[in-house]
Amino acid sequence: MLDDLNEKCAVVGVFGNDEASKMAFLALHAQQHRGQEAAGISSADGVKLHLIKNRGLVTKVFNEDDLENTLVGRSAIGHTRYSTAGDDSILDAQPVFARYNRGEMAIVHNGNLTNAAEVRADLIEKGAIFQTYMDTENLIHLIAKNKQAKLLDRIIESVKTIQGAFSLVFLSRKKMFAMRDAHGFRPLSLGKLGDGYIVASETCAFDIVGAEFIRDVEPGELLIFEDGKEPQSIKVLEPTPKHCIFEYVYFARPDSNVFGQNVYEMRKNMGKALAHEKPVEGDLVIPVPDGGVPAAIGYAQESGIPFEMGIMRNHYIGRTFIEPTQEIRDLKVKMKLSPVTSMIKGKRVIVIDDSIVRGTTSMRIIRMLKEAGAAEVHMRISSPPTTDPCYYGVDTPDKDKLIASSRTCDEICEYIGADSLSFLSNDALLKSVNSDSDKYCTACFTGEYIV
Amino acid sequence: MLDDLNEKCAVVGVFGNDEASKMAFLALHAQQHRGQEAAGISSADGVKLHLIKNRGLVTKVFNEDDLENTLVGRSAIGHTRYSTAGDDSILDAQPVFARYNRGEMAIVHNGNLTNAAEVRADLIEKGAIFQTYMDTENLIHLIAKNKQAKLLDRIIESVKTIQGAFSLVFLSRKKMFAMRDAHGFRPLSLGKLGDGYIVASETCAFDIVGAEFIRDVEPGELLIFEDGKEPQSIKVLEPTPKHCIFEYVYFARPDSNVFGQNVYEMRKNMGKALAHEKPVEGDLVIPVPDGGVPAAIGYAQESGIPFEMGIMRNHYIGRTFIEPTQEIRDLKVKMKLSPVTSMIKGKRVIVIDDSIVRGTTSMRIIRMLKEAGAAEVHMRISSPPTTDPCYYGVDTPDKDKLIASSRTCDEICEYIGADSLSFLSNDALLKSVNSDSDKYCTACFTGEYIV
Amino acid sequence: MLDDLNEKCAVVGVFGNDEASKMAFLALHAQQHRGQEAAGISSADGVKLHLIKNRGLVTKVFNEDDLENTLVGRSAIGHTRYSTAGDDSILDAQPVFARYNRGEMAIVHNGNLTNAAEVRADLIEKGAIFQTYMDTENLIHLIAKNKQAKLLDRIIESVKTIQGAFSLVFLSRKKMFAMRDAHGFRPLSLGKLGDGYIVASETCAFDIVGAEFIRDVEPGELLIFEDGKEPQSIKVLEPTPKHCIFEYVYFARPDSNVFGQNVYEMRKNMGKALAHEKPVEGDLVIPVPDGGVPAAIGYAQESGIPFEMGIMRNHYIGRTFIEPTQEIRDLKVKMKLSPVTSMIKGKRVIVIDDSIVRGTTSMRIIRMLKEAGAAEVHMRISSPPTTDPCYYGVDTPDKDKLIASSRTCDEICEYIGADSLSFLSNDALLKSVNSDSDKYCTACFTGEYIV
Amino acid sequence: MLDDLNEKCAVVGVFGNDEASKMAFLALHAQQHRGQEAAGISSADGVKLHLIKNRGLVTKVFNEDDLENTLVGRSAIGHTRYSTAGDDSILDAQPVFARYNRGEMAIVHNGNLTNAAEVRADLIEKGAIFQTYMDTENLIHLIAKNKQAKLLDRIIESVKTIQGAFSLVFLSRKKMFAMRDAHGFRPLSLGKLGDGYIVASETCAFDIVGAEFIRDVEPGELLIFEDGKEPQSIKVLEPTPKHCIFEYVYFARPDSNVFGQNVYEMRKNMGKALAHEKPVEGDLVIPVPDGGVPAAIGYAQESGIPFEMGIMRNHYIGRTFIEPTQEIRDLKVKMKLSPVTSMIKGKRVIVIDDSIVRGTTSMRIIRMLKEAGAAEVHMRISSPPTTDPCYYGVDTPDKDKLIASSRTCDEICEYIGADSLSFLSNDALLKSVNSDSDKYCTACFTGEYIV
Repeated sequence: MLDDLNEKCAVVGVFGNDEASKMAFLALHAQQHRGQEAAGISSADGVKLHLIKNRGLVTKVFNEDDLENTLVGRSAIGHTRYSTAGDDSILDAQPVFARYNRGEMAIVHNGNLTNAAEVRADLIEKGAIFQTYMDTENLIHLIAKNKQAKLLDRIIESVKTIQGAFSLVFLSRKKMFAMRDAHGFRPLSLGKLGDGYIVASETCAFDIVGAEFIRDVEPGELLIFEDGKEPQSIKVLEPTPKHCIFEYVYFARPDSNVFGQNVYEMRKNMGKALAHEKPVEGDLVIPVPDGGVPAAIGYAQESGIPFEMGIMRNHYIGRTFIEPTQEIRDLKVKMKLSPVTSMIKGKRVIVIDDSIVRGTTSMRIIRMLKEAGAAEVHMRISSPPTTDPCYYGVDTPDKDKLIASSRTCDEICEYIGADSLSFLSNDALLKSVNSDSDKYCTACFTGEYIV
Repeated sequence: MLDDLNEKCAVVGVFGNDEASKMAFLALHAQQHRGQEAAGISSADGVKLHLIKNRGLVTKVFNEDDLENTLVGRSAIGHTRYSTAGDDSILDAQPVFARYNRGEMAIVHNGNLTNAAEVRADLIEKGAIFQTYMDTENLIHLIAKNKQAKLLDRIIESVKTIQGAFSLVFLSRKKMFAMRDAHGFRPLSLGKLGDGYIVASETCAFDIVGAEFIRDVEPGELLIFEDGKEPQSIKVLEPTPKHCIFEYVYFARPDSNVFGQNVYEMRKNMGKALAHEKPVEGDLVIPVPDGGVPAAIGYAQESGIPFEMGIMRNHYIGRTFIEPTQEIRDLKVKMKLSPVTSMIKGKRVIVIDDSIVRGTTSMRIIRMLKEAGAAEVHMRISSPPTTDPCYYGVDTPDKDKLIASSRTCDEICEYIGADSLSFLSNDALLKSVNSDSDKYCTACFTGEYIV
Repeated sequence: MLDDLNEKCAVVGVFGNDEASKMAFLALHAQQHRGQEAAGISSADGVKLHLIKNRGLVTKVFNEDDLENTLVGRSAIGHTRYSTAGDDSILDAQPVFARYNRGEMAIVHNGNLTNAAEVRADLIEKGAIFQTYMDTENLIHLIAKNKQAKLLDRIIESVKTIQGAFSLVFLSRKKMFAMRDAHGFRPLSLGKLGDGYIVASETCAFDIVGAEFIRDVEPGELLIFEDGKEPQSIKVLEPTPKHCIFEYVYFARPDSNVFGQNVYEMRKNMGKALAHEKPVEGDLVIPVPDGGVPAAIGYAQESGIPFEMGIMRNHYIGRTFIEPTQEIRDLKVKMKLSPVTSMIKGKRVIVIDDSIVRGTTSMRIIRMLKEAGAAEVHMRISSPPTTDPCYYGVDTPDKDKLIASSRTCDEICEYIGADSLSFLSNDALLKSVNSDSDKYCTACFTGEYIV
Repeated sequence: MLDDLNEKCAVVGVFGNDEASKMAFLALHAQQHRGQEAAGISSADGVKLHLIKNRGLVTKVFNEDDLENTLVGRSAIGHTRYSTAGDDSILDAQPVFARYNRGEMAIVHNGNLTNAAEVRADLIEKGAIFQTYMDTENLIHLIAKNKQAKLLDRIIESVKTIQGAFSLVFLSRKKMFAMRDAHGFRPLSLGKLGDGYIVASETCAFDIVGAEFIRDVEPGELLIFEDGKEPQSIKVLEPTPKHCIFEYVYFARPDSNVFGQNVYEMRKNMGKALAHEKPVEGDLVIPVPDGGVPAAIGYAQESGIPFEMGIMRNHYIGRTFIEPTQEIRDLKVKMKLSPVTSMIKGKRVIVIDDSIVRGTTSMRIIRMLKEAGAAEVHMRISSPPTTDPCYYGVDTPDKDKLIASSRTCDEICEYIGADSLSFLSNDALLKSVNSDSDKYCTACFTGEYIV
């Protein structure tokens, strides 16, 4: 799919570690695929919070001096962000930080609040002042304005008033809190890191720092981290799981476990199901890298057709883009992907990708394969047609930009120039992830949003 | 004096100009001497505010694309900042921006609020949430929380509750407001720029954009800029002028007029008064560049002793500083200043500087002149001993770091190694700026703060 | 293998194209894997040569303005370089440029001259002056000093006096020349680009610009490119092919064809041969990415054991490396590679890599897999033990750093902690690339260097 | 004059100092005004030369690590360069470095060789190969090709074949040589630095490192620096002094002594002579900063008309230049210079500048002063009309760009819009520097070049 959809964020929280901000840094680095535009870490030393955030990759935003001398303390939370370009993008980095009548607080948030506009309007009506465009800023106001004496109670009452997708980590001077919405849209896992703890969007963050996976933070659960105590759990919201199935389809790293299952395996299952449900004769199964690799392996294993890495990915893509005036067709895609021509020539190629969003990239890939001499190109997609935008934390184009919102499978096939095109059915997708239809959100495929 | 004291900011506001943000950029560039750490501009296009701010010099923070395509609209306000290093320095750049129940607003502020802590505590007590350490953020909350229907009234009531030094410019979607505290601590002037208007800390900002000086914004006055109207004036606070005399002594650019008088002339007057009040026999009068130049010219003219540029300033000072292990004495000063040895050798030199803060720089300069062969070095300072810190917008060291807070003139003379040392008296200073003792704040020399 | 060996360079030459330098830029970008330290392009406009070279990736060294306004002309040659750090690394970028008694010339070179020291000593003895450490500079002197009247003849006589590996492209004001050593150690292919021509180290450079592969430049062949003519061919050296087999094993991009065969296919053949020659029982075949992928696919297809991408590669590796004081074992490898734990747990894993150089990386990968729960780890290497350094253009460690130079296969197996270890035999390797033992240089495996 | 003419270089050599490269760095920093485009240092450790050079200011080209770990050894030579933009500007930085049949050598050069083209043609004819456009490269070839056994003799014979302006420092593995052309066009002074020695273009370089001035290197003299010995002197060329008088007029730093006299004093003398020779009635004498300051002081002292700093210089000029579409007249000059309006208004102003090159800058300054309200503006130039280009090391525009080459003083006066304009006569200039007409080169004023 190559960047047509973007996960909005990754979060991490480290509690009770002498090098909390370094651990947070490494955890963010491992989760860089979830957001490359901005990064930030806030740490707490028991007396005060510290904060550094800026635009850029994790390795660019922080240097060793920042981590050692500014972001001091035994707890830290961090965030990477995919942010749309524009006026306020510098200001919209996270953590969101606030000083208010009960102290200081920093928040990181993966997800999207569906009632943010109303809550914000209401808060503004009551006198709140917003300094950014981030929905996450709402939470600061809700917690600060809440009348409860204890921070814990204020957090609890506040999260009850927000809707949508939220995997949150809160940092105060002495405590850390982790919370997941009732549907558990976005992943959030708990691990043991030395004598302390870590929470992160994906378990790949645990592997890099040598943390041990304990369990997922449950939908609707709030975890409280306090010095010298086990993390306490409070069921704040009634859990009604609706995990984002696109985490399995595309977002999460294959080596992560999210929602209790390994991502790579789920993708392989999808590939197998696809081979079963939408078989086609062919000589080779090749993935669109990197997203389509596990599904293609699954497809090949199930179909018995050989798997090949028929398309190479160039990892030296820099920012500068030189456009020759004498047009080189599909140059943008060609700078990223290139076919192994000798292998493809004269072959009936089954190309596996995770999804089709706008259709343009698929069209270019197919054209590239045909120019490389493929006899036939059959595209198989390991998810259903993406027909509807996401309101739960994915940066989707508007509905009218989604090719599947207005075109049939045949029309898309014609548009992209494939010899055949099939998508995995929603039922088969759900079966691939070992689920009944209730446990996952598939709104982007079905338009059936949770109210 | 060479950087021992630092003005905290410059502000600018441009209203009714097709290239408002470019005019603001040029005006900030002309005022760069008032703050080199961060810069920001917010513009309004009638519908929405736009904002870019970051660390660095004006020419680094903004590029042409920013000014043309992001900071669009016919009004703009800007800020340059001297900021102490630390955690939140990126966040503490101005303009401060807010979205609240009546719309959007951006504020720039030159000065320092003396009751900021109490006001903030009170606001926080009432539920306000602060996202930065800047006292300027108080104003956003005061204005937003105010019950008055009109923005104008909210601003008026709000500024009545803050104390200290403030030259402010507010930008809303359609209007701009400029306000100065009752004492008029910091300068703020009004100019005509084409069909529109400009306000700026110093008139040197008018010269660069070709604006015509109209008058100063009066102490306690609020100016309202609205499309198709002359600026309206409201006397919000009873004016009791206490202009910062250090603007004349050191901060403002010599080509600027502040508080109705030309800075260069005031400095020359101080030099003349110094020659009259604290004469000394000598062969040459030389300034410590650049601050001491006009006073030295005045001193020379009054005393009849020849003026010479006996110390050169190197303008290629970069960030990198290489310290040889085999010590070169006073290298740091020598990289900035160097004596014209052949002229100084064997001469009785009268060195003119604007002030002595810590004393270390003076000591090094005198040692450098003695090493260059000066027979005698007589230091004359065109202001009284700096004995007390400023609470009105100057970044002064703590009182115990001010050499004059605990030492007599003779003791300082001995410390810096001069053959003689004299300061201009406070009375003579006030006379130099054509004033009685009431119109200016001289707290840094007298310890007599306005309550 | 992950960066233990490094190809030293890629070259490109474009002749007869209105955007010659842009085509060269794109071709270098596609060949960036052959050298990331420095890059340069020289163009000719018929009257004069132009040159830009510097340290850094291709996208950093050149901007659009350089390509459009400085590197003008219808022919251009380019180079990317892997260079050892040190004093003169900036100076040692290519193209090498010279002005001499017959005009101007620029040269790019992939390879290594084995008699460079003697030739240089001789040239210096005769009065030549060298301004860099590059062996390529020899050629400039040889050509310039040669008595022949025609440049062509001077080039011919000069290349006859150098030994070793060289794929060269020369640019004069009006012509371009491409030459390959008699053994054809390094690849160099000829393509048609619009009405003009292109030569490049790898054919992946042709694909990006839409050029059509014609044939390889033959060992010992010199091609002359002149306006309005077909490229002329001269057999300068008697061809005795000894192609670098490591191009197939590791260096070249899988989608390139080098030495007349597709790299991906050769690697798959090696994997198949490995499965046949060194079988082992296992549950999964997984590659060390990216180098081991095609061989692992081949191994899996031949053995019938499932292929899985059991190790993920993180592509966001930046320059900054934060080392926590509380040691995280193998952090450096973990930041690049991570296992799909759930898939590996309890499994007998067959890991395929292209080669073992120092052994350290292999040791870390195996430890990582064991920590992820692998029941057994069997390492299979798709090339023989690397026992000897390369003198033909590969940056190999000294012989005593090559683990296989002093240890048996069993000893290496113990060192890296694998349950079993096998290498592909040299004979099987040669068979995999469809060759008798004469056509390829396998000196790094056998120590049998061409004299 | 503001940058219309540019000195091409500064050189430094340090011999016998444990921190030779750091001393060279500081000396280059002090001489940064002689070239801002590129910088380089080469050091020798007895066995090998080391070299770092690149584009940019001295503080940007070198970092502490370079000076401590790469540029090791007890001797070092350095260079700053003003270089015209273009293809090869990176390559054309100095030191020029070479390896040849007798060892290694690095050279730095301030000046310009007038027979460079012929010498180069001859060298090329004989087979030499040039890798840059710098005339300095000639020397490398001459020395290397020379048949003498000793380096000293080769240097001596070589410098006898070159003509023009050259202040040179040579570095070999164990020795250093300093040489000045027979006319002594460019300055070069010798100082004692600890137990070792330093040579530099200007004595301001001695002051920063605490070196003691010994004497100038004499025209035609070669100094040899060798371990454990006093510097040896050889008269290589018959001295016929023709010092560049423009060093006094504009190039050198006022605190430097060049050609045995202090620059500041010479400029004051010119100002005094100007007041005497070209008097005019006026209220104020103001300099065009910084170049015109000492002459203006001299003019004021001689005429009795008060000296004032009536034009301020802004030192925050960055690279970015924002051009508003609605033109602000003379913005480029206004960003650098601004008048003290209140002082100038209604006054008859005598403006002192060092020279007029193109005339455009003078025109803008005068327009700026008139717009500031000056009643009259009388321009006085402390040197004669610049009518002819320099061939001895100054980057002058072509003759037809020199306004004085084709216009009379009255015509220039009309062009620049002054009320009167006068230049110092050549005789008076020579008298100001205490010389008969023979000792200085005034070719740029007279067109009388030394053959």
